[in-house]
Amino acid sequence: MSEQHMVILLAHGSSDSKWCETFEKLAAPTVDAVPDSVVAYMELAEPSMQTIVAKGVEQGCRHFTVMPLFLAVGRHLRKDVPDMISVIEKTHGVKIDLAPPVGENPQLGQAIREVVEATLIRNNEAP
Amino acid sequence: MSEQHMVILLAHGSSDSKWCETFEKLAAPTVDAVPDSVVAYMELAEPSMQTIVAKGVEQGCRHFTVMPLFLAVGRHLRKDVPDMISVIEKTHGVKIDLAPPVGENPQLGQAIREVVEATLIRNNEAP
Repeated sequence: MSEQHMVILLAHGSSDSKWCETFEKLAAPTVDAVPDSVVAYMELAEPSMQTIVAKGVEQGCRHFTVMPLFLAVGRHLRKDVPDMISVIEKTHGVKIDLAPPVGENPQLGQAIREVVEATLIRNNEAP
Repeated sequence: MSEQHMVILLAHGSSDSKWCETFEKLAAPTVDAVPDSVVAYMELAEPSMQTIVAKGVEQGCRHFTVMPLFLAVGRHLRKDVPDMISVIEKTHGVKIDLAPPVGENPQLGQAIREVVEATLIRNNEAP
């Protein structure tokens, strides 16, 4: 692990372990490509942000970037996650940057279009 | 509108109107590219699937495909949405196919990786 910086790929979380499995598969290309990146869950599943930051701090990391693997900003990203980050920063004496959710990048909208088109073609439902 | 087939891009929905705005922006490339495609919300926002299907039926459509703009399958896509679809099919005498969520397509995982990498570079936080 880098002593400088860790990337936290933040998912919503679910009590449904299959949800987490699907999510980890979705995040796998990013985890594989981005050094010191890990998946964490906002709620209902482990590891939480708190768990990941505590582990990072033990290993000398003081700077974290949270990349929300969310499609859009709602109450969670406007209020709950910033509140959690504020508490974790104070508890551990670390700096945590919160990036915009991946869904705000137009590239994701283009990828969704391609996936929808491919699915319709596969199902013989393309117009 | 096609008399044959409509595509419903199903989002979770939120009471936060900004969430819906962000979502509609994310879905815009798909709505623009795929004929007879519209966004609908599972809960907390309008239009609902019910609303969209009722309108489609009025215009002669009897076949719908629901493309969940979700990252992973949880309780909503395993239970709630199929239950809703079953009720709507019976109510309106239509056929509604439920596709896998966009997040299950490996292409979305690759797009997320590219977005995360681009964000880290922009923030000078790339490893």
